[in-house]
Amino acid sequence: MPLPEKQLIQRIARLAGPRRSGAVRLGIGDDTAVIRPPRGHELLVTTDFSLEGTHFRGEWHSPQSVGHRCLCRGLSDIAAMGGQPIAAFLSLATPADVPQKWIDGFLSGFLALARRTGTTLAGGDIAQSRHGILADVMVVGSVPAGKAVPRAGARPGHIIYVTGALGGSASILRRLYAGERRLPDPKAKADRKHFFPEPCLGVGRYLRERRLAHAMIDVSDGLSTDLHHICKASRVGAIINELLVPLAAGAQPHDALHGGEDYELLFTASPKAKVPIEIHGVPVTEIGWVTKGKNVMISDMKTKPRKLEAEGWQHFTPSRSTP
Amino acid sequence: MPLPEKQLIQRIARLAGPRRSGAVRLGIGDDTAVIRPPRGHELLVTTDFSLEGTHFRGEWHSPQSVGHRCLCRGLSDIAAMGGQPIAAFLSLATPADVPQKWIDGFLSGFLALARRTGTTLAGGDIAQSRHGILADVMVVGSVPAGKAVPRAGARPGHIIYVTGALGGSASILRRLYAGERRLPDPKAKADRKHFFPEPCLGVGRYLRERRLAHAMIDVSDGLSTDLHHICKASRVGAIINELLVPLAAGAQPHDALHGGEDYELLFTASPKAKVPIEIHGVPVTEIGWVTKGKNVMISDMKTKPRKLEAEGWQHFTPSRSTP
Repeated sequence: MPLPEKQLIQRIARLAGPRRSGAVRLGIGDDTAVIRPPRGHELLVTTDFSLEGTHFRGEWHSPQSVGHRCLCRGLSDIAAMGGQPIAAFLSLATPADVPQKWIDGFLSGFLALARRTGTTLAGGDIAQSRHGILADVMVVGSVPAGKAVPRAGARPGHIIYVTGALGGSASILRRLYAGERRLPDPKAKADRKHFFPEPCLGVGRYLRERRLAHAMIDVSDGLSTDLHHICKASRVGAIINELLVPLAAGAQPHDALHGGEDYELLFTASPKAKVPIEIHGVPVTEIGWVTKGKNVMISDMKTKPRKLEAEGWQHFTPSRSTP
Repeated sequence: MPLPEKQLIQRIARLAGPRRSGAVRLGIGDDTAVIRPPRGHELLVTTDFSLEGTHFRGEWHSPQSVGHRCLCRGLSDIAAMGGQPIAAFLSLATPADVPQKWIDGFLSGFLALARRTGTTLAGGDIAQSRHGILADVMVVGSVPAGKAVPRAGARPGHIIYVTGALGGSASILRRLYAGERRLPDPKAKADRKHFFPEPCLGVGRYLRERRLAHAMIDVSDGLSTDLHHICKASRVGAIINELLVPLAAGAQPHDALHGGEDYELLFTASPKAKVPIEIHGVPVTEIGWVTKGKNVMISDMKTKPRKLEAEGWQHFTPSRSTP
């Protein structure tokens, strides 16, 4: 059983560090946290569930990996707006039979990523769940007022770019489904991509500061679905050159087109913009362009372009299995 | 089964109203929401789980009541800082067999309270759960910089006040446990206290604006536990006059001292302060005073004062049953 709630909160507060640091004026231990955004900044707020059986599995994911991944989801959303994180809020519910050791491992994974990205754990909630471990993580960040990069900024003629390589996370998941009982090897880059993905905060901020990205989203649901999100919000279409989509090591084209949890950035830029081929060591690849209309197409440059359906993850769709 | 995720989000977005209103510059539908706090204000952030079987039960609580209650928890925390709400974020996971009708009822309860309190539903997350309905609600509010009323402001000699009456919610819960299969009657004031509690936003703001409250908390875990929170944060003790604690209709003294979910405000004020006996129609009752040391005591004014243990709700304590 975990520590009683009060002691558990005290332990989390101690691990989280000072209650007051930078923009966080009051952290864990009052009715609310108090955040003073940097002058001239707006606040960015995002929240993501991570549920055992749906988003992770006890036999596949170490507690450190679960803690890291559930914070990464929100940090990646902040990156996709071109922002910087300020604080995270952790709502965690576990069954009474989860050992405190699991919670400690979870916290160490969560807090290591928080520290490295300048994110203060400033609050949350603790509860007992009847079934399975449930985490809901909110991340609050900031961006200079009016400068957040939305999904809705794509215009016909824009070039579409993606950072890093795609399909790495999905390819590992595919192998786990197939029965490979491989444990993550923190030293193996391909494994880290699934178990300890890295939010693209530096790249997102670079693109926003230089006004290179006009529309941006993180690739969390899969390239096809996330490109549809940009096109729908911007009321445009797109065409992707299948041959240009950068494949992660071990990934198949389907992983790269439809697999989620890559946490790379997908953005559009004016054809006049000088987008570097590498930012902070991360490759940036041109994969297509924005079109008029609302069709999202894909082409292998040989046969007739075909529709790229949004086949990424969606909850409450009967035909798809959950992990 | 609920609507597929994308359609469900579209439906929620439509019900939530304009994506841009007041301090909310960008609501549902991007990677993050964007919030511009009022000039000179700090942000208040709070988050609360509401889990089926732990915080509510399908056979006791209508979907409207569940939606209302899970938003009320965060709004009450904002009230306890003397703030005003800006936006709410709803993370909702349900099993695949929950009908869309339940979700619609939940949303109508949630959004009715949101509208009435000027809170914009600005984002969240949707997922499929394996067991039970899970909601995690974050509320973002604001308060003039440096003016939030903390738990830590109680000083020896301060008078302790509580708003409204206590134990109403616990007394209904006690009757539900005892097997009364009574359905909530929205017209019955005593029933509303449990099923549709009202966050004390106006009173909290009044006390903050007039600098009457030096330490404040909402009575969500029970008077005994919440008074301990104030005393611990302020490094003081307290003594309560048992005869002065205002009992809600139907409540027994144990309900009032240790029952949670009353969402009244507990605060301390200087003995020189002119605290009205009623604020916005809500009675304000003096129930004791702050002392040196760290003992929290209770007295019936006849026998020797005894220790008031924190017997309110705490997760992961084996001796207590969950609803």
